[in-house]
Amino acid sequence: MSQTDQTTRPVRGTDPLGVAVPSTVPTHWYNIGADLPAPVPPHLHPGTREPLTPEDLAPLFPMALIEQEVTTERYVEIPQAVREVYAMWRPAPLHRAHRLERALGSRARIYYKYEGVSPVGSHKPNTAVAQAYYNAAEGITRLTTETGAGQWGASLAMACSLLGLTCEVWQVRASYDSKPYRRYQMEAYGSVCHSSPSELTEAGRAILAESPETTGSLGMAISEAVEAAAKDPAAHYSLGSVLNHVMLHQSVIGQEVLDQLAEVGETQADVVFGCAGGGSNLAGLVFPLIGQNLREGTTTRVVACEPAACPSLTQGEYRYDSGDVAGLTPLLKMHTLGRDFVPPAIHAGGLRYHGMAPMVSHAVELGVIDALAVEQEDAFRAGLLFARNEGIVPAPESTHAVAAAVEHARTAADGEVILIGLSGNGVLDLPAYGGYV
Amino acid sequence: MSQTDQTTRPVRGTDPLGVAVPSTVPTHWYNIGADLPAPVPPHLHPGTREPLTPEDLAPLFPMALIEQEVTTERYVEIPQAVREVYAMWRPAPLHRAHRLERALGSRARIYYKYEGVSPVGSHKPNTAVAQAYYNAAEGITRLTTETGAGQWGASLAMACSLLGLTCEVWQVRASYDSKPYRRYQMEAYGSVCHSSPSELTEAGRAILAESPETTGSLGMAISEAVEAAAKDPAAHYSLGSVLNHVMLHQSVIGQEVLDQLAEVGETQADVVFGCAGGGSNLAGLVFPLIGQNLREGTTTRVVACEPAACPSLTQGEYRYDSGDVAGLTPLLKMHTLGRDFVPPAIHAGGLRYHGMAPMVSHAVELGVIDALAVEQEDAFRAGLLFARNEGIVPAPESTHAVAAAVEHARTAADGEVILIGLSGNGVLDLPAYGGYV
Repeated sequence: MSQTDQTTRPVRGTDPLGVAVPSTVPTHWYNIGADLPAPVPPHLHPGTREPLTPEDLAPLFPMALIEQEVTTERYVEIPQAVREVYAMWRPAPLHRAHRLERALGSRARIYYKYEGVSPVGSHKPNTAVAQAYYNAAEGITRLTTETGAGQWGASLAMACSLLGLTCEVWQVRASYDSKPYRRYQMEAYGSVCHSSPSELTEAGRAILAESPETTGSLGMAISEAVEAAAKDPAAHYSLGSVLNHVMLHQSVIGQEVLDQLAEVGETQADVVFGCAGGGSNLAGLVFPLIGQNLREGTTTRVVACEPAACPSLTQGEYRYDSGDVAGLTPLLKMHTLGRDFVPPAIHAGGLRYHGMAPMVSHAVELGVIDALAVEQEDAFRAGLLFARNEGIVPAPESTHAVAAAVEHARTAADGEVILIGLSGNGVLDLPAYGGYV
Repeated sequence: MSQTDQTTRPVRGTDPLGVAVPSTVPTHWYNIGADLPAPVPPHLHPGTREPLTPEDLAPLFPMALIEQEVTTERYVEIPQAVREVYAMWRPAPLHRAHRLERALGSRARIYYKYEGVSPVGSHKPNTAVAQAYYNAAEGITRLTTETGAGQWGASLAMACSLLGLTCEVWQVRASYDSKPYRRYQMEAYGSVCHSSPSELTEAGRAILAESPETTGSLGMAISEAVEAAAKDPAAHYSLGSVLNHVMLHQSVIGQEVLDQLAEVGETQADVVFGCAGGGSNLAGLVFPLIGQNLREGTTTRVVACEPAACPSLTQGEYRYDSGDVAGLTPLLKMHTLGRDFVPPAIHAGGLRYHGMAPMVSHAVELGVIDALAVEQEDAFRAGLLFARNEGIVPAPESTHAVAAAVEHARTAADGEVILIGLSGNGVLDLPAYGGYV
């Protein structure tokens, strides 16, 4: 990791194998912590309530990621091997939504940043590839994780296959049984996917002994994946959102946006709408833009769009809470609905989380991010409008940002620049659209 | 349509709305007919066996497409409105398959051209958008078509939604019932999808009266879609492969490849592997490369990879045959297994066709395309190898090209340049992979 005042991009990067990496794939991740007026509150040990030490995290994460979790550097260099994988789908396209503008009769210029071009159709591989890389670099050969609907599990499965690791995923039983496509995807990448709770862990066996018919939960699956990693010295655990190093990795999204807006002649996005569940897509999209506001005086307004059914930012409290149901994880300072809040079964599975990433919560407290809640029906209606005008069926998560942007665009000022974060496509969520149509 | 000696590309195209179209989106389609040493045999009227006249086709197709079916121009200008839609995902990426090379211990440089970045995940929109455009330009408001597994139906549905047409798709009942994702996709784009045979057409009612339990077939669905278009003056019919104008539209693929190979410093692809069903992906990929061979003396070898279960090029006869089962379509000079050949239910649904595009068949007869057949199991094995090394799960159709390329690469000469045509991704075919794993 090298300290630099700004991201310097080569005219054309060349990797050791002689492959040309497009110069527009960022060379560094951006850390908003360096630009915010107050530091992000530290994570606390759940027993002592003292700030976590690196040793506390060492059984589960490689040292490079532990350092990234607390770094105060503005830019962290992206390893060349990670950039090579990014170059498969990055820079992700920024498109002008001409047809949507016309359909709305909007006087605004609407753009969308589309992460659905990754091989698994979402932004999740941006951090999965980085996490797999650092684990492999420190000699780890196996990663474990949990997944709900399966977007994160599939992303880590892909990353592990490319970086030479084995990957074991505990998937919430309800999804494992009802949505097999993501499991097939994980298996195609060579990963093993277990229905959780499973007989493979003490945690799983204890739950099954008490409730053999349980449909599982993310909290249970986390317990199993963490236990499996902790018991194997060659294994680590991997988390797809919430933590600071995940926000860091996702910053490639917003950094590309800054370049791409400049390329089409826009001086700034006037307002940005991103969906917010755990917070990683939102942070990746907007932190570089907020950083530009803070350093250079641009005035981009940022709006976090969360589901009305799981409104951690608009209805939650800002306090320390556990990341999991059982209270085993570190305590995180965040907007939370309470660790035992059970979100209803909305289609945007990626937004069903009781808390919000500490860095996003901190930014909201500092007043640099606004938040609003979107009803599921409004989200789907906007998703269909987007599909029929722009050709892309958005992921159910992304439709929350689309809905808020559409509402805003109808009465936007002449020439206002609106940016929508499209975190992924809805190809594997088509049954949800089928139900809505 | 303007005659030009070569494709001239603007430094940066600008559409009337002021959107910058990347200069690397081709400005013209390429017609190999202008470079082949003998003309493509004409289509014949099924009754008279005389060459078709434009009037014969006018009830079903717009005049612009009828002209493109017989044009002898080398380059046909792409309308700006079509280029704008192409720019959503074009130029499609050309990637070097470094990890696959290492996994095979190959001394070759392997590249793949990836069409799976389109919103529906395949190359089909390249012609769907063009067909929707020309129909809309001639005042048509409704398109009808048939579809099997649904890739073509979804592509035309997307194109129609973007160009302001309504779209009605007759889908083979077996797929309609067992594979609902593509239907949800068509409906998300605002199209109507009927199970075929249906009660909506005379053809459908006649079939149902005789065989109420039939699972349908492409031949039946074609009859229904053609009948519906013929009865409505505001409607036309649209076909996703086989015809000359479809090959023309797909030529954007290979033209981009020529630019992209030059950009990474390769003077030519030494050998190209593309999958072949109806022939449109193969033609789009290889015709521009064959044209370069014929005009400039490059020596790219082209290999068409077809399924062993439906081997029209390697086992079929080269003769005039019908495009459909009932014998209602024009007679096409092509490699055919006979119009009543029923391919087994292989997973690569897009390759299950009894004939081959006349232009591809003609090129094979002239000796500028070789052909080989691939067993389904070898194809899936290669698909998994590709997924685990390159991160993309290929469409089952594409795995036929991957399998042949992998076999060739193991013993390739030092520095040989191998190109694989990846016609699409396998995201909606994951159950087939699940069955194979």
